[in-house]
Amino acid sequence: MSFALGELAVRFGCELRGDPDAGVARVATLAGAGPGDLGFLANPHYRAQLAATRATAVVLDAASAPLCPTAVLINANPYATYARIATLLHPESPATPGTHSSAVIDPSAQIAASASIGPQVVIGPRSFVGERVRIGAGCVLGAEVQVGDDCVLQPRVTLESGTQLGARVRLHSGAVIGADGFGFARDGAGWIKVPQLGRVRIGADVEIGANTTVDRGAIDDTVIEAGAKLDNQIQVAHNVHIGEHTVIAGCVGISGSTRIGARCMIAGAVGIVGHLDICDDVVVTGMSMVSHSISTPGVYSGGIPAGPATVWRRLVARFRRLDALAERVRRLERPNNRTKTDE
Amino acid sequence: MSFALGELAVRFGCELRGDPDAGVARVATLAGAGPGDLGFLANPHYRAQLAATRATAVVLDAASAPLCPTAVLINANPYATYARIATLLHPESPATPGTHSSAVIDPSAQIAASASIGPQVVIGPRSFVGERVRIGAGCVLGAEVQVGDDCVLQPRVTLESGTQLGARVRLHSGAVIGADGFGFARDGAGWIKVPQLGRVRIGADVEIGANTTVDRGAIDDTVIEAGAKLDNQIQVAHNVHIGEHTVIAGCVGISGSTRIGARCMIAGAVGIVGHLDICDDVVVTGMSMVSHSISTPGVYSGGIPAGPATVWRRLVARFRRLDALAERVRRLERPNNRTKTDE
Amino acid sequence: MSFALGELAVRFGCELRGDPDAGVARVATLAGAGPGDLGFLANPHYRAQLAATRATAVVLDAASAPLCPTAVLINANPYATYARIATLLHPESPATPGTHSSAVIDPSAQIAASASIGPQVVIGPRSFVGERVRIGAGCVLGAEVQVGDDCVLQPRVTLESGTQLGARVRLHSGAVIGADGFGFARDGAGWIKVPQLGRVRIGADVEIGANTTVDRGAIDDTVIEAGAKLDNQIQVAHNVHIGEHTVIAGCVGISGSTRIGARCMIAGAVGIVGHLDICDDVVVTGMSMVSHSISTPGVYSGGIPAGPATVWRRLVARFRRLDALAERVRRLERPNNRTKTDE
Repeated sequence: MSFALGELAVRFGCELRGDPDAGVARVATLAGAGPGDLGFLANPHYRAQLAATRATAVVLDAASAPLCPTAVLINANPYATYARIATLLHPESPATPGTHSSAVIDPSAQIAASASIGPQVVIGPRSFVGERVRIGAGCVLGAEVQVGDDCVLQPRVTLESGTQLGARVRLHSGAVIGADGFGFARDGAGWIKVPQLGRVRIGADVEIGANTTVDRGAIDDTVIEAGAKLDNQIQVAHNVHIGEHTVIAGCVGISGSTRIGARCMIAGAVGIVGHLDICDDVVVTGMSMVSHSISTPGVYSGGIPAGPATVWRRLVARFRRLDALAERVRRLERPNNRTKTDE
Repeated sequence: MSFALGELAVRFGCELRGDPDAGVARVATLAGAGPGDLGFLANPHYRAQLAATRATAVVLDAASAPLCPTAVLINANPYATYARIATLLHPESPATPGTHSSAVIDPSAQIAASASIGPQVVIGPRSFVGERVRIGAGCVLGAEVQVGDDCVLQPRVTLESGTQLGARVRLHSGAVIGADGFGFARDGAGWIKVPQLGRVRIGADVEIGANTTVDRGAIDDTVIEAGAKLDNQIQVAHNVHIGEHTVIAGCVGISGSTRIGARCMIAGAVGIVGHLDICDDVVVTGMSMVSHSISTPGVYSGGIPAGPATVWRRLVARFRRLDALAERVRRLERPNNRTKTDE
Repeated sequence: MSFALGELAVRFGCELRGDPDAGVARVATLAGAGPGDLGFLANPHYRAQLAATRATAVVLDAASAPLCPTAVLINANPYATYARIATLLHPESPATPGTHSSAVIDPSAQIAASASIGPQVVIGPRSFVGERVRIGAGCVLGAEVQVGDDCVLQPRVTLESGTQLGARVRLHSGAVIGADGFGFARDGAGWIKVPQLGRVRIGADVEIGANTTVDRGAIDDTVIEAGAKLDNQIQVAHNVHIGEHTVIAGCVGISGSTRIGARCMIAGAVGIVGHLDICDDVVVTGMSMVSHSISTPGVYSGGIPAGPATVWRRLVARFRRLDALAERVRRLERPNNRTKTDE
């Protein structure tokens, strides 16, 4: 289906420069676009590609518009505008309401008539599935799970007993929500299991990536607030609390009982130790180890960029001898009795 | 169901201060507890919450008892005692013995009559499932898998062919036990697969977290000894050996053929390179890279805490110029011919 | 089944020293081998085990042959030769062609008659499964998935819609190929989803480990070229491109739009930031953070080995005061007006 640029400009609040009757039917990259395609420029990195694009139109901001040889849809937030138009041009294929005959649904579960339950799905007792929910093949929902309206579960998601999802939550394949937290009490040489009795509660509009795990709370619940977005392969331990609109990239690990504020951005492979309090609006760059609470918004870092191995080995050797180096400096300072430093 | 404090004191070896006939029916946090709830204090961090707790009783150690306004159950190991009482108060809901009609069980598999096999489970030829085992929905067991008595497999666990589980092993959703190890032989520009012929053997009372992977051995087996506890999203490569009662937190990666001793504690996101030997009673703190064998028990570290990005960038720049700094110190030492240091 | 050493020597291009009629039936470690077993020596680390081995024959290179008390099969690449012979001695058990009755196959899907489709498998509309493919229990293939000849999917793999696999691709349990990339556009305080419209294309002879995730492209495809090998628990973000014969060890995370060349070797738990270009023949050692493009082949490092905690804490404290140390050196340099350094 094709949409006229004039209509798109009106629907999405853009200034149009170009033929309002020209149509676009799909999105494309600037480099790969052809007639009927809509491109976008959100990252200045790709500005050089504007000149040669063969897109029918490009979504961009006012500053970049003069550089574009094609029709343009100008908006102060071109990426969000692109996202909205792309959603219009490429709607998800509608799911057929109903439950596949191979699914195993406990008779006490309540499934909205408009929900679509795929093959091999298992839904436990007293669970509730809301309107227009789509549950992909092979998902397993335990007992007393609540799935809000318009949620989408891709195939092979596990929601353990008691998990609660707000509206429009989207879970990707292999995600496990509500497994036991890692709680063991030392008992002589060994360990005894501490029952994990809390649940996982997830707010509206949360998205959780493939093979990400969110453990149930030990006593109270693990909570992910509305609008948070979690990438793949993230580990969220028991009783963690993640604030609204916080985004967390892949491979992050968050230890138990840590609270992360709203609107934080945690980059890939960050590790956050347990029982911390991270305030709102904190950005943590990739591969950082966060081992103390953070009470001031801002950007925090902890990763050291890799370099050629020969150089790196020398740096590591120097690092290992920092004590000796400092001692040498101290000796140099001593004999001439120079001003004492803060060492 | 409610239990009298007097009975709990006797059963779990506690000194009771308070009304032996008062009853508790469930556990709660100190801050969230109300009448009929049992709290506990195991982490001195939370001692301040004692004064205001409304729990009916609190499990704690003798030193904290005078600070508690409510009845107390005193034990030298309050966390383990709490865990035991919580298990009594909140028993797992019993599974119904039998095999769900949707499960696909090879006729040559032996399933104990007391075992509970959930929907959509697949069990391969010559496999064996012991007494009172619970296998959750969607689990797949390959050929010749052995599952000891009282094991619990949460939904969607994979046990590849030949995997052996001792008694009371607990596996969480998405865990994959016995996938091929990562073995390839270079052959010109490419790689050819080295058959992975060993199995995974897991001892009694082991717990393995959600989406954790334990690869089968290349020739000999990969082994996890009794009582070890592994959190979520851990990668255990082929021919690793993990000793008794060792605990490993989330996101740890252990490379091939490494041996980890008994009673070790490996914190989150640690990486351990291959072919190492880590002795008993080693503690490794979070995000450390263990690249050498460890032969002395103790605590080992390798992570550097994150800080504000501006400060961090300066430190990284300094780190990158450590060679130059050391050279400057050497020059300072030279002219006056000071005592040579260990540099 | 047993094979004569003489036949193995001819088939695999080895020089045989020993009885050509002696037979081997299985492989074993040098330490564990007995009569009828074939050992190998590829890692000089294990050379000391040669003297005592009780294997019937050992695959090794010419230099090690004189140290071996048993028959030897000499080849310049003993590991690859071992891999080939092991594959001969231990063939995979043949799969029975056909589709299990519990599988749910869309009527528009095309499944080769020689393919084996396991229990509880789900295959979506217009998908294509090639000759001799084996799809393990509980796998889910979305719409328009293409699976080349001789692919092997272990149990519980997800291939989301549009995924394309070349011939002989091998995917391990829990792998998720084609989940949405992590794309969100900021919109006020929150985020709106950017549709992920690309696919994942995987070349021939690729192997992908358990619980590894490869996201679909945002617009263009995510691509893994032929012969690449990925271990477990790896995260490959949208629009990443991985070159031929590149090997990637467990727990690596690769951020969006990064290109990795051919024949690279990425060790465990490396993190690679987005939009980078890593050239061919790059080796990255374990736990490195790659934050810049690499245009020169070679070895790159970024991990710092752990040490005893007390020593480490002192080093970290020194690291945190590097600025002050450099300032002290600057002061030492100043009064005597020594030669200015490059600081």
